[in-house]
Amino acid sequence: MNKGIGYVTVGDSFDGYMLIKESTKGVASNGKPFLTLILGDATGEIEAKLWDASKEDESLFIAEKIVKLAGEINQFRGKSQLKIMSVRPAQATDGVRVSDFVEKAPVEKEVLSDKLTEVIFEMDNPVLQRIVRAFIKKYQEALLTYPAASRNHHEYVSGLAHHIVSMLGIAKELHKLYPEVNKDLLYAGIILHDLGKLKELSGVVTTSYTTEGKLLGHIPMMVEEIGLMAKELQIESEEVLILQHLVLSHHGKAEWGSPKPPLVREAEILHLIDLIDAKMNMLNRALDKVKPGEYTERLFAMDNRSFYKPLFEEK
Amino acid sequence: MNKGIGYVTVGDSFDGYMLIKESTKGVASNGKPFLTLILGDATGEIEAKLWDASKEDESLFIAEKIVKLAGEINQFRGKSQLKIMSVRPAQATDGVRVSDFVEKAPVEKEVLSDKLTEVIFEMDNPVLQRIVRAFIKKYQEALLTYPAASRNHHEYVSGLAHHIVSMLGIAKELHKLYPEVNKDLLYAGIILHDLGKLKELSGVVTTSYTTEGKLLGHIPMMVEEIGLMAKELQIESEEVLILQHLVLSHHGKAEWGSPKPPLVREAEILHLIDLIDAKMNMLNRALDKVKPGEYTERLFAMDNRSFYKPLFEEK
Amino acid sequence: MNKGIGYVTVGDSFDGYMLIKESTKGVASNGKPFLTLILGDATGEIEAKLWDASKEDESLFIAEKIVKLAGEINQFRGKSQLKIMSVRPAQATDGVRVSDFVEKAPVEKEVLSDKLTEVIFEMDNPVLQRIVRAFIKKYQEALLTYPAASRNHHEYVSGLAHHIVSMLGIAKELHKLYPEVNKDLLYAGIILHDLGKLKELSGVVTTSYTTEGKLLGHIPMMVEEIGLMAKELQIESEEVLILQHLVLSHHGKAEWGSPKPPLVREAEILHLIDLIDAKMNMLNRALDKVKPGEYTERLFAMDNRSFYKPLFEEK
Amino acid sequence: MNKGIGYVTVGDSFDGYMLIKESTKGVASNGKPFLTLILGDATGEIEAKLWDASKEDESLFIAEKIVKLAGEINQFRGKSQLKIMSVRPAQATDGVRVSDFVEKAPVEKEVLSDKLTEVIFEMDNPVLQRIVRAFIKKYQEALLTYPAASRNHHEYVSGLAHHIVSMLGIAKELHKLYPEVNKDLLYAGIILHDLGKLKELSGVVTTSYTTEGKLLGHIPMMVEEIGLMAKELQIESEEVLILQHLVLSHHGKAEWGSPKPPLVREAEILHLIDLIDAKMNMLNRALDKVKPGEYTERLFAMDNRSFYKPLFEEK
Amino acid sequence: MNKGIGYVTVGDSFDGYMLIKESTKGVASNGKPFLTLILGDATGEIEAKLWDASKEDESLFIAEKIVKLAGEINQFRGKSQLKIMSVRPAQATDGVRVSDFVEKAPVEKEVLSDKLTEVIFEMDNPVLQRIVRAFIKKYQEALLTYPAASRNHHEYVSGLAHHIVSMLGIAKELHKLYPEVNKDLLYAGIILHDLGKLKELSGVVTTSYTTEGKLLGHIPMMVEEIGLMAKELQIESEEVLILQHLVLSHHGKAEWGSPKPPLVREAEILHLIDLIDAKMNMLNRALDKVKPGEYTERLFAMDNRSFYKPLFEEK
Amino acid sequence: MNKGIGYVTVGDSFDGYMLIKESTKGVASNGKPFLTLILGDATGEIEAKLWDASKEDESLFIAEKIVKLAGEINQFRGKSQLKIMSVRPAQATDGVRVSDFVEKAPVEKEVLSDKLTEVIFEMDNPVLQRIVRAFIKKYQEALLTYPAASRNHHEYVSGLAHHIVSMLGIAKELHKLYPEVNKDLLYAGIILHDLGKLKELSGVVTTSYTTEGKLLGHIPMMVEEIGLMAKELQIESEEVLILQHLVLSHHGKAEWGSPKPPLVREAEILHLIDLIDAKMNMLNRALDKVKPGEYTERLFAMDNRSFYKPLFEEK
Repeated sequence: MNKGIGYVTVGDSFDGYMLIKESTKGVASNGKPFLTLILGDATGEIEAKLWDASKEDESLFIAEKIVKLAGEINQFRGKSQLKIMSVRPAQATDGVRVSDFVEKAPVEKEVLSDKLTEVIFEMDNPVLQRIVRAFIKKYQEALLTYPAASRNHHEYVSGLAHHIVSMLGIAKELHKLYPEVNKDLLYAGIILHDLGKLKELSGVVTTSYTTEGKLLGHIPMMVEEIGLMAKELQIESEEVLILQHLVLSHHGKAEWGSPKPPLVREAEILHLIDLIDAKMNMLNRALDKVKPGEYTERLFAMDNRSFYKPLFEEK
Repeated sequence: MNKGIGYVTVGDSFDGYMLIKESTKGVASNGKPFLTLILGDATGEIEAKLWDASKEDESLFIAEKIVKLAGEINQFRGKSQLKIMSVRPAQATDGVRVSDFVEKAPVEKEVLSDKLTEVIFEMDNPVLQRIVRAFIKKYQEALLTYPAASRNHHEYVSGLAHHIVSMLGIAKELHKLYPEVNKDLLYAGIILHDLGKLKELSGVVTTSYTTEGKLLGHIPMMVEEIGLMAKELQIESEEVLILQHLVLSHHGKAEWGSPKPPLVREAEILHLIDLIDAKMNMLNRALDKVKPGEYTERLFAMDNRSFYKPLFEEK
Repeated sequence: MNKGIGYVTVGDSFDGYMLIKESTKGVASNGKPFLTLILGDATGEIEAKLWDASKEDESLFIAEKIVKLAGEINQFRGKSQLKIMSVRPAQATDGVRVSDFVEKAPVEKEVLSDKLTEVIFEMDNPVLQRIVRAFIKKYQEALLTYPAASRNHHEYVSGLAHHIVSMLGIAKELHKLYPEVNKDLLYAGIILHDLGKLKELSGVVTTSYTTEGKLLGHIPMMVEEIGLMAKELQIESEEVLILQHLVLSHHGKAEWGSPKPPLVREAEILHLIDLIDAKMNMLNRALDKVKPGEYTERLFAMDNRSFYKPLFEEK
Repeated sequence: MNKGIGYVTVGDSFDGYMLIKESTKGVASNGKPFLTLILGDATGEIEAKLWDASKEDESLFIAEKIVKLAGEINQFRGKSQLKIMSVRPAQATDGVRVSDFVEKAPVEKEVLSDKLTEVIFEMDNPVLQRIVRAFIKKYQEALLTYPAASRNHHEYVSGLAHHIVSMLGIAKELHKLYPEVNKDLLYAGIILHDLGKLKELSGVVTTSYTTEGKLLGHIPMMVEEIGLMAKELQIESEEVLILQHLVLSHHGKAEWGSPKPPLVREAEILHLIDLIDAKMNMLNRALDKVKPGEYTERLFAMDNRSFYKPLFEEK
Repeated sequence: MNKGIGYVTVGDSFDGYMLIKESTKGVASNGKPFLTLILGDATGEIEAKLWDASKEDESLFIAEKIVKLAGEINQFRGKSQLKIMSVRPAQATDGVRVSDFVEKAPVEKEVLSDKLTEVIFEMDNPVLQRIVRAFIKKYQEALLTYPAASRNHHEYVSGLAHHIVSMLGIAKELHKLYPEVNKDLLYAGIILHDLGKLKELSGVVTTSYTTEGKLLGHIPMMVEEIGLMAKELQIESEEVLILQHLVLSHHGKAEWGSPKPPLVREAEILHLIDLIDAKMNMLNRALDKVKPGEYTERLFAMDNRSFYKPLFEEK
Repeated sequence: MNKGIGYVTVGDSFDGYMLIKESTKGVASNGKPFLTLILGDATGEIEAKLWDASKEDESLFIAEKIVKLAGEINQFRGKSQLKIMSVRPAQATDGVRVSDFVEKAPVEKEVLSDKLTEVIFEMDNPVLQRIVRAFIKKYQEALLTYPAASRNHHEYVSGLAHHIVSMLGIAKELHKLYPEVNKDLLYAGIILHDLGKLKELSGVVTTSYTTEGKLLGHIPMMVEEIGLMAKELQIESEEVLILQHLVLSHHGKAEWGSPKPPLVREAEILHLIDLIDAKMNMLNRALDKVKPGEYTERLFAMDNRSFYKPLFEEK
């Protein structure tokens, strides 16, 4: 049995099932067509070339299909590549399902849902609580399945909810250490800060940007949504404005997409908690794939740094 | 009779009425209280010190009162200052009104209103026209009296409408030169782009920033307003999104407050027209105050440049 | 009959004539030589590989030759590529001329020339008029055929004159809206601002940079030329200095190649008009190639943005 | 009885004791000498002018002396200033001590010391523990009394220890949420990261920079100290290098004084925890001085932002 | 006898002659006029206030007059200021001349002239030599008396020639160490690189910027001059272009005023030699005024750094 | 007989020996393995592909082996590539040694060593001399063989010593021109400034970065080493701190790796001398490979500029 594709190294052979994530036709230098496949399972992705692809191959090996492959891991321009020995579409009798080949949050959807409910229950400010409840109700299903991004961090099924719940964990502890922090405001801000992504990203499976996402972005879209929701709930107190500000400023700087920087204590702390959880998610997953004494691959969203795992780390 | 305070030079004497725009109490090095007054009329502003101010003076010489002064223009740390010889509050019998001491657009309110109406009448796209009409109706009065900014450009009564109408003039001509430009979209974008300022700025007379203005800013506020208005008018076509994008991107860059850069042709051209009209307004007013062969004062919003008026310019 | 190569999409077949713009020899992974051809017609360019190229092929398929090709449009690393099925040099009997395969301004040379004459005729300042006339006379032919740049905007035959004439159109209208603008100075600045490109660029057909262009650049070269011309015409009034300043500052900022920023009103407005016309030229040509609901290719000279064409745009 | 000077507002009168923090002689515009005094107590600072200062005044009112003052709070160039009505040096019989007028950490020195001991006790890695213990022993006294900086955050007696202990609190919780984090390494990094300040800053009372601090800075100084300490303790394992890296990189970026960015997970998290605690310290102290609905003064070390305290905050 | 004003410290008294460099009228807070004088001698400058200035004072104490003063050095807002005890205009019988109160290069004009002649004599390339000779002849007098700048470095009589001669000294040695360097080209570039300042700066005594200097700057002006001179001398070889490039690029970067960076070896080395000589001039003069163990004042043109003079430096 | 590989141009044939510097396995589009070889001799490097590589080839053609090749120089993606016609491992009887294929400083090791000794002998300050002697003794062998960098400048055997000796040459001359410079301090700084590279780089032959080099960098490592050495030599005078500062600041700016900018005169001059020698080394070697009238390849470490060699340069 194979370990996941995220864990193979150059020279390994591979024999098993993977999901086709992308399939692009090309023409080789000998004039014959080939397919470039992005294949994946729940642990990672790899590129492969299917040389001399027939018309039939082109129709069989398309995105969101599962295939059975045998091959070897090579290196090409510094990246791993699967050299295909044999490949065929998976069949009903193979008993494999798409959902098994998609990366998922390490925490179950139900657990994430319970944690959210619990936190909302702890909130004392009735206005903030009402707004949050209304959004949870409106987006219940999407909120529990969407990724938090199309790549970089929490880019997996239930990634958004996982990110929110991790952030709430940090918020709870920071509130204990700094009791001046308004817990309810911070909780509400965390839960709502990225909900605009439900409209900015196209879906759970193949995650691209919607036109609305490209032209407005999730931040102004969510500011508007809070305004509409408050109108619907007939709420007019200052909490609405402050919540909008938390969402608006959570990227921290104009260059990073927040037209206003944090100007309220909880906005600043929300920005910092967002940074920590995103970075820990990227770092832990990258370091998990290397051994002590080695460096991770370069992490694009962390200034392209390659991190070192000290020799004295337990495996 | 005095020329306006915006045209005096060091050494001139002054005898006339001005409006107190700000009045701040200080204590001189001899321990006695004094008032720092910012005085103005329709042509400009000047600072003055009222030494040895009595308790009565403090209550008489306050913001938004008109005073009669005689004095001389001195220089202090490179800026003009009025040395007060005599000062008294204006009286009913003086026949002066606050509205005479406030800078106003060089075009009458009624003319601006007519031009707006005319442009809206020319629009062919019914969706864009409906949205624009709804906003004009909602903000009619404020739109025709507000300044376009608290300083730098069009910072006078009816400045916003003046700015909009000038921009519409440029748009009309550019549309003739580049017929690919969608005239209706561009007109709608120009009329709405700065309407958020009606909520961002506190008022016509003493213009400061509202809390909402500080925490959200006029751009996201207007994006939200367009969303709400569309909902009210039950409009769901793409024009709404594109209009929101025009407003969102009209500052051109994230660093300048637009989380998305212009990504639609008319958004780009709106941004450029906004630049031209703001710069021409600043430049023309500054150059109007100097003679050929001289330099203007440094213009903060134009990278602090000091502009030269060539010798061959007609006065 | 084919539509132009600028309008084909992946999957189309192509059968017709194109001009070879570049031809470079390479060696394939099977050790055999091949040619990389950049082919073009009046609507655009495409790359093609000629595999297994013989010595004869190498001598036949060289830059500035016309070829007849049949083939299919493929995609390679995200860019279109023509897969050649058959190719032969064009023959005398084919009746095709190089000039038919070069992109040209959408306005005739004669029309551009007339417009220039007309504008010069409108100038009242005799000094500015004399200098402008002298340059027009000196560069008449080149001025009417050169491109305005080697790529990005107005990079076609008569591109420079087209750019100048468009800018003059904007200037005329802005002068009406802002009568303070010195029309003559602005017209003179527009006509001369890019004439240095006649020496910076190597020619109309294959446009590269001259040594002089690389080591000095068109801006300082033109400042010098104005100085020399004034000397020749024995003009010593301030107009010369101000014209040199307009040329020197027209890129707006030191980082963009202007050692002095605009410090005269018409210099500022010249810079803005230059921006508008260059951007509209790029935008209109890129949007012309996509359908409503689609995005343009990334435009390098516009911060690599990809623009959206709204669904409600008429085709 | 007065509230602390950090809590007075313009118009208040003041009658009580303060410590002179700085005293500078000047000459007034009437040619007479005066003293500019920076006065402070445990809650804040204020400037005052002592006009017509005699030679005796100059010798009496010097830094680190306590004075008894009566006066009124005025505003001068936007900052509060104390207008002195009467002033005299404090006398033995007044029963006031310098230590009462210096700001101190809100946690007692003994408590901070106990917390440190407790954390070190929890460490499992013997190498890291030995190094940390050696430093604690070497700097015991200074570590418990020094400020963490000369201004901005934790700039009070025991500020450094307070900062360390707060950071350890965050580290403990983050370790629970992200168990991959190496707790011992992170604890050691936190305790040592700013110890170089004990040599960079001149002292507890009047905190300026030493020559060594100016020419090398606390970061390279501490990297060197860890090297020397390891040599002394005859430790050669990789922990030394990694600890040096944590100290070296804790400012996060080259521009901020870290020649290497964090390249080890715990280095990244140390940098983030440092940010959070410094920011919370600045924010909480600034917000503590304003009422709901008001803005704080501009916070220089937080990009000069002025923070808003929402109306719904409990006082 | 006084030491020069550049060497006094706070608390010193002063009794002697100085030149008035600037005189500005102001009005004191008691309503009486005063004069702000910038006074100087060959070693430095100081500010002084002349309180209660009469109309006669205003006409006596003007720029370029010598005065006899007695007074004391005070500190005002962190800068030294002379408190005037007595002051009178210098008289014929005092035997003082303006030229004694102006800072001059530490090397005699004649010596600088000889060095230049010597270097030109060493040049082998006849074209470069002819151009250089022609400029020396054209500007002989100004070249030997002008400063190299209005402030920062070599801002004294004969500063430009001093700067050129120092740079030639470095060039000579670098040519020995790197014989690949074209000595003649480098010498010519050094002699001409800043000659544009003769037109950019208004004069030797009170050095401000000319209109031409503000609108074009010395670099494009000198590029033009070389072109005109070459035309006059009927030289057309590539040396002209390369010399223009050396002048154009000698500031090193577009942001620093060079539209093209150095693209020829000698252009790069010219830029570096210019940097060294300017920096050494600033540094040596600033360090000359402080004692071992002290810091210089902040040097604006060296990134506002304050330099340390080590204790082990001989005085 | 071949000229070195650094001097071939496209179209040349090559027949001779080269050293394999890197060998990487790949898989071609036909599914067959190939080797990418980086080959070099004392004059430069070139890439080559060995197609259809057998298992035996993979074991024969590895890094640090010499091979005999015949082939032709082609162009691939704008870079030269050797097309291999025949290749075999060098044999004992070929009489070739690895040391003949490695680039070396143009000055002999012994000469460099003598120059260093001579300079140290000239130093008068006993403290600086002792420290320098101790380091020379400690690192004698490595110091004379290491490169100064892994690429860009002085990246050859004895490159570090060559760099140091060239810099000392410049220092000597600048000291004559600016006698205020402390010669001993500058000499000591130059000799020590890059010694940290002996630990940062992995070795002379295949130069990569050590873990210590990656996590700390040569600058902080050398600052620490000076501290340790001073402790060992029981030196406590200020020279130690100043030397550490010279090393710490020699990159000039925080962004370039120096947490403190130069704050001592000799630190500033050391930084400038380092720049000159590194740039002259890169420039001279690049220009040596092109003919008059040509441009060098783009030089990455010189802002990617391509330098021009004037026509009037002697070959």
